[in-house]
Amino acid sequence: MFGITILGNNSAIPAYDRHPTAQVVTLNEQLFLIDCGEGTQMQLARYKVKRGRINHIFISHLHGDHYFGLIGLITSMGLLGREQDLHIYGPPMLKDIIDIQLQAAATTLPYPLHFHALGDDGIIADYPKFTVSSFQTQHRIPCWGFIFSEKKKPRKINKDAAVLHGIPSAYYDKLKDGADYTTRSGERIPNSEVTFANTPPKSYAFCADTVYHEELAEKTSGASLLYHEATYLKDLEERAALRFHSTTVQAASIAIKAGAQRLLIGHFSSKYETLDPFLSEAREIFPNTQLAIEGVTYVI
Amino acid sequence: MFGITILGNNSAIPAYDRHPTAQVVTLNEQLFLIDCGEGTQMQLARYKVKRGRINHIFISHLHGDHYFGLIGLITSMGLLGREQDLHIYGPPMLKDIIDIQLQAAATTLPYPLHFHALGDDGIIADYPKFTVSSFQTQHRIPCWGFIFSEKKKPRKINKDAAVLHGIPSAYYDKLKDGADYTTRSGERIPNSEVTFANTPPKSYAFCADTVYHEELAEKTSGASLLYHEATYLKDLEERAALRFHSTTVQAASIAIKAGAQRLLIGHFSSKYETLDPFLSEAREIFPNTQLAIEGVTYVI
Repeated sequence: MFGITILGNNSAIPAYDRHPTAQVVTLNEQLFLIDCGEGTQMQLARYKVKRGRINHIFISHLHGDHYFGLIGLITSMGLLGREQDLHIYGPPMLKDIIDIQLQAAATTLPYPLHFHALGDDGIIADYPKFTVSSFQTQHRIPCWGFIFSEKKKPRKINKDAAVLHGIPSAYYDKLKDGADYTTRSGERIPNSEVTFANTPPKSYAFCADTVYHEELAEKTSGASLLYHEATYLKDLEERAALRFHSTTVQAASIAIKAGAQRLLIGHFSSKYETLDPFLSEAREIFPNTQLAIEGVTYVI
Repeated sequence: MFGITILGNNSAIPAYDRHPTAQVVTLNEQLFLIDCGEGTQMQLARYKVKRGRINHIFISHLHGDHYFGLIGLITSMGLLGREQDLHIYGPPMLKDIIDIQLQAAATTLPYPLHFHALGDDGIIADYPKFTVSSFQTQHRIPCWGFIFSEKKKPRKINKDAAVLHGIPSAYYDKLKDGADYTTRSGERIPNSEVTFANTPPKSYAFCADTVYHEELAEKTSGASLLYHEATYLKDLEERAALRFHSTTVQAASIAIKAGAQRLLIGHFSSKYETLDPFLSEAREIFPNTQLAIEGVTYVI
């Protein structure tokens, strides 16, 4: 399963039982936490996400609604006896913020905590079947988005055809990688005759907080699912720009320019009680839009 | 009204919809927040306590379950446009922790924040009608409790008697302070003949986190309401000592030795789902005990 579970969909001030930003990416049976606003550990419990299965946490930027719950989560993990390594990817200063709070409590975590400072755009974690990259967005303070990209999947063997052409099974791995086959008699069998295409690799791009910034469309180009903030409805475009945030229409425009398959919008301002207008405004521009709703898992 | 509203009654790890420590003291139409665990701003909203009326926050110590919600609360106050002064009393290092997080977010609060570092036992805030004192408890890291004490109230004029003795009303303020009156003819009217006693001053002592420590009984002597932590039931006395916490029986023993009128126990360990045994164990020793229950206001 490749899916995104929303734990918090609100902007800075909690309101209407909506919580600050936090999302769990499930990929290849691992859980990755993106952002960790205040109360995230309670939200994890509420939606029965197992803390112990989270080994990687990504923090986009140091506005409180994206990380004030981190120190509580990592100290609770310690109190619960965690021993596995935990990796945190975040803005450089986050390490100092964590350290001073552990020091003040005279706490030594019972597990290794590895801190990885975010910097230039590029791959920050490379796994056998996928990668995680970070890229800078344009916000009031340095801010990073994240892309989870499956690697190209091997082609599938068309067994009947392969046998018919007398291809030895020892050669199948090469077929999966896309190689053609040359028989003893010198005849060249094109790969496409003896294999099927696999499902195309999927990707999730999380755009964090950002003002409308066309470059983000390039950076997240072709995402299967694009998360883009939509703090305001379209009539507040000016306020959005002033505060380095985006509107529904801007989020949808980035989705079109990026050639995204689907768009997920969130980070709704506390001034809005109902969210329906967010959906209708975005869908006018980009029909395949969904609202990020807490407790819901969006399968890619 | 002099009352204590419980916002969080649990120890370190949130569980069973119990939250980390936070209490609101209402006294003389002011609100004072004691401790501010993660999620306190949501608990304030849940129980309809007006953030804007809190001008003083007291933090007992730097274990996360007592202060991880502070930075979120003070930045939210800023986002909501607060302009009044806010006073924070806490361990010296708390200032650095607040400062680094404001700095990381490039946040300038729109209101003056005054930080007061806790130190030796004594009065930390002196108001016309009451004082707030701090005192050290005995915990794994430096930790302070707080006492809210009404000042001695002026005596009430027995108007009929005062008129009968021909005491001019200009002298009433002196009578309220306890002075006798001497008539023109030199006759001395004892104060008790022309005044009534006022209600005795009341006090609330918050003992924060502490191992069993007899000195606390002296420090909180005569409290109208004593809050003492009871993290564990009595059978876990050894574990309590190891972790610098207390049991039900120890809390109740301090209440007796302090000559408290009432005892409130809280900071229950996450290992307990039901709290009834806490109440029965403490009441065996000190009958006038109540459990700190979230959302409940205990009027003194």
